[in-house]
Amino acid sequence: MAEGITEAGGKTRLYVTAALGAGLSVPLSGPQAHYLLHVMRARAGQRVMLFNGRDGEWLAEIDAITKRGVTLTCRTQTQSQAAVPDLWLVFAPIKKTPSDYLTQKATELGVTLLQPVMTRRTIVARVNAERMAANAIEAAEQSGRLSVPEIGETVSLEKLLAGWPNERRLFFCDEAGATATACDADPLAKAARPAPAAILTGPEGGFDPAERALLRGFSFVTPVTLGPRILRADTAALAALAIWQSVKGDWV
Amino acid sequence: MAEGITEAGGKTRLYVTAALGAGLSVPLSGPQAHYLLHVMRARAGQRVMLFNGRDGEWLAEIDAITKRGVTLTCRTQTQSQAAVPDLWLVFAPIKKTPSDYLTQKATELGVTLLQPVMTRRTIVARVNAERMAANAIEAAEQSGRLSVPEIGETVSLEKLLAGWPNERRLFFCDEAGATATACDADPLAKAARPAPAAILTGPEGGFDPAERALLRGFSFVTPVTLGPRILRADTAALAALAIWQSVKGDWV
Repeated sequence: MAEGITEAGGKTRLYVTAALGAGLSVPLSGPQAHYLLHVMRARAGQRVMLFNGRDGEWLAEIDAITKRGVTLTCRTQTQSQAAVPDLWLVFAPIKKTPSDYLTQKATELGVTLLQPVMTRRTIVARVNAERMAANAIEAAEQSGRLSVPEIGETVSLEKLLAGWPNERRLFFCDEAGATATACDADPLAKAARPAPAAILTGPEGGFDPAERALLRGFSFVTPVTLGPRILRADTAALAALAIWQSVKGDWV
Repeated sequence: MAEGITEAGGKTRLYVTAALGAGLSVPLSGPQAHYLLHVMRARAGQRVMLFNGRDGEWLAEIDAITKRGVTLTCRTQTQSQAAVPDLWLVFAPIKKTPSDYLTQKATELGVTLLQPVMTRRTIVARVNAERMAANAIEAAEQSGRLSVPEIGETVSLEKLLAGWPNERRLFFCDEAGATATACDADPLAKAARPAPAAILTGPEGGFDPAERALLRGFSFVTPVTLGPRILRADTAALAALAIWQSVKGDWV
């Protein structure tokens, strides 16, 4: 996964892959070094926040600037790596602009995995996983997250369901006739740390009847409604994620 | 408000301003007539769905095509005009692309009024109300709504609050320290038809401390949290709208 760089609330916040810890050196090169030096006009002694998805968030200081890049040293841990709700978004790929938007918003809303799934009515043939990863990193940097969502390899709906982990509830946003709302469903999960969950949204044309029947046959699937209006695919995904976070996730 | 035209689920669905009723004629000209004739290649006898925000949805048939436009006749009412939850979105104006997106999504999510409000940290000086109206009409046509949200005239936060209707609860998305979630707040409203409500979201830089104190001083204001991550202004608005609809609105 590529490293990113972004301004968040006046602080430069960077996702890196290197280990972070008191006194550890973090070398940056390529686009991140370029951004620090030529966009932020950073100098030795300036401070940057770093996170890597494992070691929390660290305040780091720029030590050395050379032709090959920038070296920072971790000074103080500003946040420890906390457990976050384990929430996947499984979605039928959509066009480029709404897909960028969906990646950004789903990252802000705290998903841990973005899983593209091919359905019968999906008309987008190819997922640009690199572009999705870059958007996810940027959104993670800006939103103050301590990790970046994974981007799953695209699979067919049938294959995904065949290998589905039983303990992970799959909330299927069913545009044709669910009765539970995403808020009602599985209220017991509200109590302690939420159980692993996933939201599933279809393509613009919806799921076909055979897919709906297939989904409803699995015990780990809970069909949920998102109201009487026709929502675009990206709207449906974001609405369901927000509702889940507000009822069972880390907004409670 | 301009009239719109859009394809929704294979049906051409149009927002018009004329009265609709059995046997009534609806003349279309300008962009709608152009679209029907030259994009849809419509001919006499073809059917189109019409709504105007007052008379429900009607199946109408194209009767006459002249140089000046198209005339349709209303045949059958396909939906009666039902009451919808009375939900406003009050938001600090944001840049063009996220603003387009916000208008589209908020319309899908069922808002009745989009109210721009100027706050101290708002950096967008001008709201393009015409563009917002056009986006709202297109989204209403595609989402199957029977009405189009109104676009309010931009006002300052102070002026808006001074004239606020006491019976309308204002859910203030407070990025700095609310404890209620949008789901918890005002649970009694869940019972019957929901009371009038509004969601308030700030600019990218958030509300300033004086504004937060002002808001918290009003009895009609309920501060709500949207979790631990920093959400963009448009994400916050959509998340809060979805949560409200799922708990108190017409998704229940």
